[in-house]
Order: sequence, then structure tokens, then C-alpha cells
Amino acid sequence: MNNDNLRFQVRQLSLDNDDLMLNETLFHNANGYLGVRSNFEEGYPDGYLSIRGQYINGFYDFAEMKQAEKLYGLVEEKQTMLNVADTQGIKLYINGEEFSMFDGEVVESSRTLDMGRGWSMREVLWRSPEKHEVRITVKRMASFHLLPLFTIEYEVESVNFDGELRLVSTHIGNVQNYFNPNDPRVAGETFQYILPVSAEFVGETSLLVSNTSKSGLQVASAVRHECSKAGQESRFIEDGTAIYEWKTELAPGEKATLVKYTVLSDSIRSASCRDEALKLMERVSAIGLNRLYEEQEKYLTEYWENCAVNIYGDDELSMAVYFNLYQLIQSVGKDAYSNIAAKGLSGEGYEGHYFWDTEMYMMPFFSLTNPEIAKSLIRYRHNILDQARDHARLMGHARGALYPWRTIMGKECSGYFPSGSAQYHINGDIAYAIITYYLLTKDTELMLECGAEILFETARLWLDAGHEHKGKFHIHNVTGPDEYTCLVNNNYYTNVLAQYHLQWASKFYHLLQEQDSGAFSKVIGKIGLTEAEIAAFREAAERMYLPYDEELDINPQDDSFLSKKKWDIAGTPKDKFPLLLHYHPLYLYRHQVCKQPDTVLAHFILEDAQKLSTIRNSFNYYEKITTHDSSLSTCIFSIMASKLGLHDKAYEYFGESSKLDLFNTHKNTKDGIHAANLGGTYMAIVYGFGGLRVKEQGLFIAPALPDLWEGYDFKIRFEDSLIQIVVRRGAFEVLLLKGTTKEIHIYGEKHTLKDRLQVELK
Amino acid sequence: MNNDNLRFQVRQLSLDNDDLMLNETLFHNANGYLGVRSNFEEGYPDGYLSIRGQYINGFYDFAEMKQAEKLYGLVEEKQTMLNVADTQGIKLYINGEEFSMFDGEVVESSRTLDMGRGWSMREVLWRSPEKHEVRITVKRMASFHLLPLFTIEYEVESVNFDGELRLVSTHIGNVQNYFNPNDPRVAGETFQYILPVSAEFVGETSLLVSNTSKSGLQVASAVRHECSKAGQESRFIEDGTAIYEWKTELAPGEKATLVKYTVLSDSIRSASCRDEALKLMERVSAIGLNRLYEEQEKYLTEYWENCAVNIYGDDELSMAVYFNLYQLIQSVGKDAYSNIAAKGLSGEGYEGHYFWDTEMYMMPFFSLTNPEIAKSLIRYRHNILDQARDHARLMGHARGALYPWRTIMGKECSGYFPSGSAQYHINGDIAYAIITYYLLTKDTELMLECGAEILFETARLWLDAGHEHKGKFHIHNVTGPDEYTCLVNNNYYTNVLAQYHLQWASKFYHLLQEQDSGAFSKVIGKIGLTEAEIAAFREAAERMYLPYDEELDINPQDDSFLSKKKWDIAGTPKDKFPLLLHYHPLYLYRHQVCKQPDTVLAHFILEDAQKLSTIRNSFNYYEKITTHDSSLSTCIFSIMASKLGLHDKAYEYFGESSKLDLFNTHKNTKDGIHAANLGGTYMAIVYGFGGLRVKEQGLFIAPALPDLWEGYDFKIRFEDSLIQIVVRRGAFEVLLLKGTTKEIHIYGEKHTLKDRLQVELK
Repeated sequence: MNNDNLRFQVRQLSLDNDDLMLNETLFHNANGYLGVRSNFEEGYPDGYLSIRGQYINGFYDFAEMKQAEKLYGLVEEKQTMLNVADTQGIKLYINGEEFSMFDGEVVESSRTLDMGRGWSMREVLWRSPEKHEVRITVKRMASFHLLPLFTIEYEVESVNFDGELRLVSTHIGNVQNYFNPNDPRVAGETFQYILPVSAEFVGETSLLVSNTSKSGLQVASAVRHECSKAGQESRFIEDGTAIYEWKTELAPGEKATLVKYTVLSDSIRSASCRDEALKLMERVSAIGLNRLYEEQEKYLTEYWENCAVNIYGDDELSMAVYFNLYQLIQSVGKDAYSNIAAKGLSGEGYEGHYFWDTEMYMMPFFSLTNPEIAKSLIRYRHNILDQARDHARLMGHARGALYPWRTIMGKECSGYFPSGSAQYHINGDIAYAIITYYLLTKDTELMLECGAEILFETARLWLDAGHEHKGKFHIHNVTGPDEYTCLVNNNYYTNVLAQYHLQWASKFYHLLQEQDSGAFSKVIGKIGLTEAEIAAFREAAERMYLPYDEELDINPQDDSFLSKKKWDIAGTPKDKFPLLLHYHPLYLYRHQVCKQPDTVLAHFILEDAQKLSTIRNSFNYYEKITTHDSSLSTCIFSIMASKLGLHDKAYEYFGESSKLDLFNTHKNTKDGIHAANLGGTYMAIVYGFGGLRVKEQGLFIAPALPDLWEGYDFKIRFEDSLIQIVVRRGAFEVLLLKGTTKEIHIYGEKHTLKDRLQVELK
Repeated sequence: MNNDNLRFQVRQLSLDNDDLMLNETLFHNANGYLGVRSNFEEGYPDGYLSIRGQYINGFYDFAEMKQAEKLYGLVEEKQTMLNVADTQGIKLYINGEEFSMFDGEVVESSRTLDMGRGWSMREVLWRSPEKHEVRITVKRMASFHLLPLFTIEYEVESVNFDGELRLVSTHIGNVQNYFNPNDPRVAGETFQYILPVSAEFVGETSLLVSNTSKSGLQVASAVRHECSKAGQESRFIEDGTAIYEWKTELAPGEKATLVKYTVLSDSIRSASCRDEALKLMERVSAIGLNRLYEEQEKYLTEYWENCAVNIYGDDELSMAVYFNLYQLIQSVGKDAYSNIAAKGLSGEGYEGHYFWDTEMYMMPFFSLTNPEIAKSLIRYRHNILDQARDHARLMGHARGALYPWRTIMGKECSGYFPSGSAQYHINGDIAYAIITYYLLTKDTELMLECGAEILFETARLWLDAGHEHKGKFHIHNVTGPDEYTCLVNNNYYTNVLAQYHLQWASKFYHLLQEQDSGAFSKVIGKIGLTEAEIAAFREAAERMYLPYDEELDINPQDDSFLSKKKWDIAGTPKDKFPLLLHYHPLYLYRHQVCKQPDTVLAHFILEDAQKLSTIRNSFNYYEKITTHDSSLSTCIFSIMASKLGLHDKAYEYFGESSKLDLFNTHKNTKDGIHAANLGGTYMAIVYGFGGLRVKEQGLFIAPALPDLWEGYDFKIRFEDSLIQIVVRRGAFEVLLLKGTTKEIHIYGEKHTLKDRLQVELK
């Protein structure tokens, strides 16, 4: 891999407010447990908007979500991810002149994200109003080695300055979430979710503890400073804020460095988060910054070693892909209390909620490259299974579980059920991801630990949600992934996925029964699953109604989709996109128009359910009526274009997907990265260009090489093996890097992979 | 008519809180402009709930209605009818002992509603803790002669008391709407909508002026007192409340009477409501109470003369019917600024909003008996046509008008659009009512003044809401009247009504064009209506798709209704009704279950659209899956049972409908009367038992007589005539009381009505 492409840099920083907020996201530091937006330590001038936030994955408060009209079962309380503290603040004074990017002269400036070493950096050569020059270098890291840790290394080098250097560092507990009364997509008013409990110094460490307003949770933040040279240090608490001040002298050519360690701890993971934070800070002190940098690089070296997708001959795209994969490891929760929020830990968009995005767009990456993390994501779903059961009851179902459409701690947070709770496919999505994980790992243990229980409980729901009509199993009044059409009957995506889900629930029943009757009986006993139910699963799957239009040879999105008016996308003014911001939902629902093409997605994940002509015709049909207003759309078109041999089209869609955040093409990356699309980019290469499929019959690959590339490679884990696929012009290689001999289907033909295989490129 | 049945009386008043609130509704006084709930003047003890309210029809404030999730076009502000003042308060002291129904001993008590004279009365024989006995008689009236006027005549007669009588009467401007944090159906928190501006005495009249918090409206209330004998009067303002106090001496056998006049005036109807209130009070003084009582009786004598439906041989039912008809004249707005709220002016349920109920359930009564009022209801709709145009734009339609589902001043107030704004049938309902009004009156003038413009603008909407598919005109993604199934394609009710609406839009175009080109050209010019559009109306009507199931020979409620699971009504526990309070809407939507049977309703209003077998089969089919959770359901079943010759069934449903409020069968009359059902009761007799239909071909009747009745009669206006139908066992008479000879279809055969017709009963 080309390590240059692991360094993303912006020079001559724009101070335009939108750019500032965008960079807060792009250069944020996160490790799946905590995330810190990349705000300037010294802040912006008054009047500038800034989303200044520091988050813990899965840490939430409850927030009121009143319904305009009260109907039974409508959710009136949501969870929201909290800004838990502000430990970013460091102000710099040279002879009393305060450093600001908006004052004096910024001679040079840059920001760097080093994805190989795991830190971000801001470098500024600043000339003060009094013409004193200093070079400021700020390096930030969210530690992968020690997840509760975030560090800032703040270095000041004098160019021509001789005098007093003063650094004032703040540790603030009394913070709020971002709000903007003028933006309907984020909170419109402020609310004090975090209620400070105590602020103290324990030795050199400042320690703030806060409670949440309603959820009964507690968070502690600890901060400790290390300064590089002698001077005058003071520590005090003022209005609940812990302040550390360091004064020293600086001569031209000389450097002074302040290291600020932040440790976060929360009551979800720790019985006493105050004590835990202190204990962790002691550990941090014992390790020291250099060791932490080394561990960070080590972690990432291994990460890239396992998962990197390398593109030869297109540095820009290559960097965009690395950027996306880097954001995935920054975003993913690594315990059973957290998952991957729609914006990772990079911002407050979607309030830190977890969606189906995880299972359908991000888990494939982890299942293929990092099964331990995939396992943890499954455990999270198991952890909230009880809430999913309650949710099913609320929705009218006497048995089974229905996962919430959006959630943090398991309760539904969707305020508008037609494009929220009505998306029953989430049950199938979770099942699909678990089945794929199993097919890749054959991890029976995890299935017995939690996978099977999820699979059975969610499968049960289909039986009650659907019903038999004229010999076929119908599922009525649900919403598919395409939110431009809601509350439909027999959504193709939902039905074909439910079919697969029900089939596999039955398969697992028999498979696990054979393998391990003890643990299995326990699961079956716990949920009272009967043979009769398994038979009903099978029968419903066999009779599943899948809408098909003979004349067009396509799968209609749902029963009535084809009888609707077609939306005139070409005739719609550009400024009316995304449509959801300009048209009433009812008007959208009345038309054939897709935010994202869920039938095409269904053809990707379950390609054997239809013949190729149907898949091709559907692709062509839905492409014309898809607006891609969802960031989950283009990657799927890219994959399916690859499958259909439309390589130029695949490449084009891939470009749109891969550059979305890094080039801010949707203009809202300031609110956070688009986590699903990150995984989508990966899928567009591995499933798309690489033609990978994971099925009961084994692995399938069918590589193609975009014209503009010299080649690409990726690695995947399969059972006990590590396999690399290296594609170059003309031919590709399949290398067994670790593990035992495997059968692999290449371009539809079975090959035995002992060591390496070289195959001509089709 | 039997005048005894015009006096509804309750003896030995229950002081149970629910009964108190129920009686506040049942004995309320209203006249279509103002309404006053029948609270005890002296109030209830602390801790009792009471909806103490005084309302003006069409007078509103805006209220925030936040959406749980923000989507384009969702309504975030509603209107709410306001409690504008409290002038009910009168406290009575005898030698310092305060009168209370909850203190001392209530020896006798009763409430009476005299629907012939137009007042309500409370009579109490009270023995004070000191054993003094007085007889208190309170008579209240909302004047039909002078709509802004409400009177209380408070008489105290001493039985054995000798001493000081003191009456303290309050006039309070600082009032709030009812709220109950424990009842999801009413406001959960209080809000100060009414902001007092001034409180003063002008001569003997107290005058309070208040502004609304957001809507920019003003209301004035004036109160004046007249006492029957000498004593000491004082008037003062305290904390914004105007207080009148009267002290006098009372000896055994002696009476003392206080008359309290309240006049309300509002800035919607008057440029200066303060001055208007004073001017009105002067007029009231000039007229005097006795004249007002005489005028009230005169008004009602004429009212009953025109509209009474008299039932012979069933006094209880007869009184229930009178009660319902009385509530209709109490509720109906008599100017273009107001309409009929779902709860009339009797309570705050549904916040004083106007629905389709008016056109489909209440207007038939007025069109048939009181066309001047029907005309005013049409003018109200014309008055809000501009807001209906705006609403259509918001919903995505470039042309035409879409009436709001619920409103006061014209803007949509529905917070949940799937069972709100999606009910596009409201356009057809309004059109249907206008067409019926025209068929009865041949009032071309009103059509030119406003009816035609409404008809054309609302017809236009169908062209954009629907579209042609395989040669048929489809209307997708709308909700029919049955709110247990939302967002469907080709709702039979909607489509068949739209067809009728489009046909008539075209007919009126030609009819008015022929009759009056001047005024007509103005209308056409104003809205830019073209011949091509009229042709498109006709074509859409011709091609209108009406769902029909050959096998069952019924009209399915919508395209997918019959493929849903049938709800097991018999198997549902009694305490789970109404279903909407116990099941998530999505669960309801997924089943064949009706809150009210909209296909059956469609068969009533447009019976010629289907053959009789289809109508009969549909009746039988939908009856089995209808819960009657809507108060708009049983009257329709009664009408259609009559049509189908199921007379026992018709009678049974009629009983449920007619007694709903008077016997509080839905247990929520405390929140207000069910205005639609009032009209439904009327329809069940006149359209049901009487078999009346109003069609382009003329009047149709087909009377039947319930077994338990000796007979019944009713009168209707038709063109220039007043016609009475008197049904007795064996035969019925049709009498031409006024006007010229008419053709009437009796049992399907044409008859000429010159003077009277006697026909054998079938």
C-alpha cells in the first residue's frame, strides 16, 4: 500500500464558517468509544457557528419528542447522544497577545490527518499583531490502545519571539449539544442534558462528574497536563470549569510543549466512573505519550494490513477509500453497549442513532476483515433484544421481536413511523448480517451465545406481520428501504429478505440442534420455540409472495408501485433536490421515484432469487427513477453495474460514493460523516469490482478492473484463512496468505485454492 | 309535535364529577355564535374537574404543534378555539353562609333544558348548615335573537330565611382553556392564549378586552346586572376581574332576582369589538329580558315548525331526536366566519375544529329544512378557499384547492397527515354538499356567488392527485373516511365521489354558462378555467376506476383491502375498544377492519353507481368488520339497512345513533356533543326510514315504518315548496304545505304532488 495516501492534508486553511465546520468533521478523532470534533482549541470569534462536541458512543439522555397528534403507540421519547465535556480548550498568549486564526497574520497553515499513525495535526505559522512569529503544532489522538483516552500535544516554537508564553487550558463540564434554530435538521433549541455534579482536582488531575437529566447515567472526565519545561503552573476551579495555566519564557528557536490527556468514563460501562477515570489516568501516566503514539501506529498498521483496499494508479481515489475505511474504524463501537452511529462519532446528525446501515452497509466490511468487531456488533443487537420484544408488543405483535428503526439503548427513537418503525426489514437486515457473519466464520459458538436467539425471535415476527392470502404469504403495510414510498404491501426487498431469513431460521434450527444440543436446548427453552413454528417458518418462506411483472420482466418495488405516476426527474429543477426537502411526503409517495433503489439492493444481496434478465431489467428500470437523495444509493448501483458488466457506469457511481465525505459532495458533512456510505464504498470495490459474494455454497469472486486503474487488491478472512485478491491488467491472483485449502468459485467455476491461483481477467 | 318531549329534565342532580361534567355539556347554552357550558355559577369544590368554558364560534388562537420528526410540509401550527371569558360566576350568601351544592343539604334539585323556549334551568331547594332554606332558580339563555347575548336569571326565594341576601357576580377575563395532563385527548398543559388588555366599568357595564397571544385577534365581553329590588349595589375591578355585588334583605316567601347580561364581541366580525360590545349592551337594555324570552320562543317555534321530526309512540326516542336537532341549531355558525365544530360550542374536544362532518352529516339537515343556514355554511367554505389553494400547493399540487382536513380559519390543523390531510375526499364532500344544496334549491345565484368557484377549484385537484393508468383514472395514496386504513390506492368512496364531483363540475360549467354569462365569465376568468380542463374533468370521470370484486360482488374499500387479514372482532376483548386507543395505527392498517364503513357510506350517497346486489353484499361484508368506533358509523348502517329492507336492524342502529349524547353511550359527551351524529340521527330517519333521496331527477321517497312506532312525520323544503311526509301504519301522506306542484318519485314511481298524496306503505 502507498502510505502517502494515508496522509490527507489541507493547506492554507479557509476560515469560512462552512469550511471550518466541515473540517471539524473531516479531522475529528475517534476510536469507536469516544469522538472529538476538530474544533480550534482557541475557539472561533463570536458569531461563528461551531459544533464543538466530544461524544461517547452509546452514552445518551432521553429527550422529549412530542407527537403533533397523539395516536396509540407513537413514540414520544427519544434518546440523544450527548456532548459530554469540552476538554479541547487551550488558549495561547505571547506577551499577553492572544493567538487567534482571525487576528494577526496566518502566514502558513495546514491540517493533516495521518491515517497510518492515527492522529490529526494542525500547523500554523502565526505572526501576531505585534509581529511576533510563532509556529504552533497541535497533534490530537483518540487512542485505539486505550479507548477512553484522547490526547492533545500542543507545541509552540518561537521564530522571532522572546518573552512570556502563557497557555490556559480548560476542562469544561457544563456543556450542551449543538442547536441551530434555523436548521430543521438539527435540534432547534438547547436543553441541559448534562448536569454537573462535581468539579475537583485530585492531585494534578482535574475531575468533573455529570449526571444526565433523565436517563440516570453518569459520566466522568479527567484531564491531566504535562509541560515540557520549567515555568509557573497553576490549577484552579472556576464556575465548575477546571483551569490549568502554564507560564514560561520562550526564546527564538526554542520550543515549549503542553500535553493534555483526557480520559472519559461512563456509568454504562463502569460501576463508578469517577474512580474509573482516575484509575485510567494513572495508567495513562504510566504509559506516556510516546508509547501511546507507538501503540496507535501499531494498531493501525495491523488494521491496514488486514483491511486495506489498495488501488493502483489513482491516488485521489485511493486516498478517498483509505479515508472511508479509516472513518469506519474510528466509528465502530467495540463493546456490546454501542454500535455504529449514522454519523459515527463525528457529529450530532441523526443524534448518534444506530440504523440498519450497520448491518447492511458496514458490517460486511467488518465481517470480511475483522470478525471480532462484527461479533461485537451482533452482541450489541442481542443486548437490546428485550427492548425489541417490547417494541413488537407495542406494534401489536403478541410474539417475536421487532428491532427499532433508530435507537441507542434499544428503544425506538423514530418519531414518524411510516418511514421509521414501519421499516420491518430491519429484522431481516440484522438476520442477513448474522447469517453472512456465520457463512464467513462458521462461528457456531456465537450463534449459540446470541445469534440464534436473535434470528428466531425476529423470524417469528414475519409470521404475525404477514399472512396467507390465496395460497401466498403476503406482508402488508410495511415500508422498504426506499423512504420515498411508504406503507406498502409486499415490498419486494422486505419479502425476499424475509424469505431468506425464514429459510435460515429453519436451517439454523436443524444445524445447531445437530451440533450442540445442550446450549441449543437452552436457547429453545428460553424462547419457547417449537417444531411447529419452524415448520411455519419454512412454509411461509416457500409461499412467500414476490411481486413480479411479466411484461417488464422486473420485480416491482411493491404491489402498487408500477401503477403510480412516474416522477419526471429530468423535468424537476435542480434546486428541488433532495426531493424530501421540497415535497410533501404524500406527494412523493404517490409517484414512482426512489430515494434509493431497494429492489436493486435486494438483487445484490439475494441475487439467486431472480434470473439475470429480471435483475438487468430492474436495474435499468429503477435507475431512471432514482434520485440518489440517500447516501446509501450510489454504492449499490455501482455494485450492480459491475455485476451487469456496465463497468464505466460502475466506476462513475463508485466515484460518487467514495468521494462523498472527503469532497463534501452532499454539502452536509459538517454534521458528520456518512457512515453507511463508507462501508458502501468498500462494498463497491469488493462486491462490485471484485465480484465477491458470500453464500451457503462458499465464496464467489468475479473480478473486473476499471479502465482507469492499473490494479487493486484486497484481503478477506474466510473461516480459518486469510485470502488476498490482487487484480492487475489482464489477470488476477488469489493468494492464500494464511489457513487451510479452500474451494472458491471464480467466474462461476469451482477452484481449489491451496497457495495461489492466477486467473485471466474477464 | 309533542311539546313535552321538548323538555329534557334531570332530577336529583348527581354530584359525581363525571356526571357534573356530562351535564355541563348536556345543558350548555349556545346559538351558533357563542356557547357557554353549564357550570354551576358558584363553582365546584377544590379538586373537582370542570371544563368551565365560554366560546365564540370561529374565534381562535394559533398554537404550536411540534412534529416529532420534521418532514417537508408537515403542519406545525394549529388553531384552537378559545375560552374567551368567564361570566358565569355568581356566589350566593345568606347571612354570610355561602351556597354550595356540596355543603348544607340539597333537598331538591333538577336541571331542565327547554328546547321549545330555548333556555336551561337549574332549580335547587337548599337547606344551609344553619337550617335556612332557600329555593334557587337559575335560568340561562344564549339568545337566538341577538347572537352575542347570553343571559343568566338568578332567582332566590326564601322558604324560611329572614336576613341578608348577598350575591357576588364575577366577570373574569383572565381565563384559560381546559387542560388535563392525564387525558391524552385534551390539552396536557395550560397556555395563556387570552391576554387581558383592559378592564373597566362604563356606567353600570363592566367591559373586559383581551388579545390573543398569536393570532392578532381581540375579544370584548360586557356584563350588566339588573336586580329586582332595592338594596346595596357595588361595582369594582379587582386583579382584572370585574365584580358586582348586591346586598338586600329577604323575608320568608319573598323572592329576589338578579339578571346578568353578557355580550361578547370579537375582532373577526367587528372593527372595534369594545365599542361594539357596549353598543350591543345598550340594545339589550332597551329590549329587556321578557322580550328576549319571547323572541327566543318565537325563533324556536319557527325552527321546530320547519324542521321537527316527530315520532309517534316512542317518547324517549322522540326526545332524543329533538335533543339532537336542538343541538344542531345551537351549534351551527350563522355567518361566513364560522361553521359547525365537531363538538359544536359545547366543549373543547377537537379544539373547535370543523371537519367534513359538516358537509356529509349536518348540512343535509340544513339544506332540507333551513337553506339560509346551508348557504352560510357554503359561504364559509368560500371564505377559506384561498387557504385551501395554499394547502394544495403545500401538498405538491400546482393548481386547484385542497380543503384542510380540520381547521377554524382555513389553515390545516391536522398533525398526523395519514388520517388528516390525506383525506382528499373532503374536496368531494364539500362539492357533494353544494350539489345537493343546488338540487334542492336551484339557487343559481349562490352558485355564481361562490359555489361554482369552490366546485371548479376542488375538481381541479383530482386531475393532479390522480392519473391515468392502463386506460383508467386512478387516485393513489389518499385516505378514505375510514381511518383504520390509511394511505391507500383507489379508495372506492373517494373515487366514486370524485367521479360525481367531476361530472357535476362539467355540468355546472355548461348550465351556468347558459344561464348567466356575465357573472359566470367573471368566475371563469378569475380562476382561468378552460374548456380543455372541463373536457379533462369529463374524461377523468368517465374513466374513473372503481374497485369491484367480481367473486364477492362487492366494492372493495380500496385496491388492496381484500387481500388483508380480517380482524377478529368477536375475539377481541371488550376493553380493547375503541381499537384506536389500544392498537398501533400500523397494526390496524394491516387488517380488514373499519372504524366506519366508507364504502357503505358511498353506496348511500351515490346509490346509482352500483347495482343493488353489490350494495347489499357490501353492506353484509363491511358490517362484519366494522367496530363503530366512530360516532359517524351507526347512522349510516341504519340508513342502508332501511334501504335494504332490514328494518329491525335499521331501528337498532338508529337507536344507537340517536341516544349517543343524551345517554352518553360513548362515555365522552363531557368533552362535548357529537355534532356529526346529531345530523346522522336526522338522516337515519329522513333518508333511512323515509327513504328520501335528492337527485338530478328530483326527489325520491320510499317510506317504511319501524314496528315499534305508530308513525312519524317530517317536513322538507324543495325549490319553492314546503312538503310534509306523514307516515302512519298502513299508509303515508305527502302534503304540499306551500309552493307549486312537484313531481315526486315514490317507491320508484313518478307522482305529481299538487296538494296531497296518500300512498300505501310498503
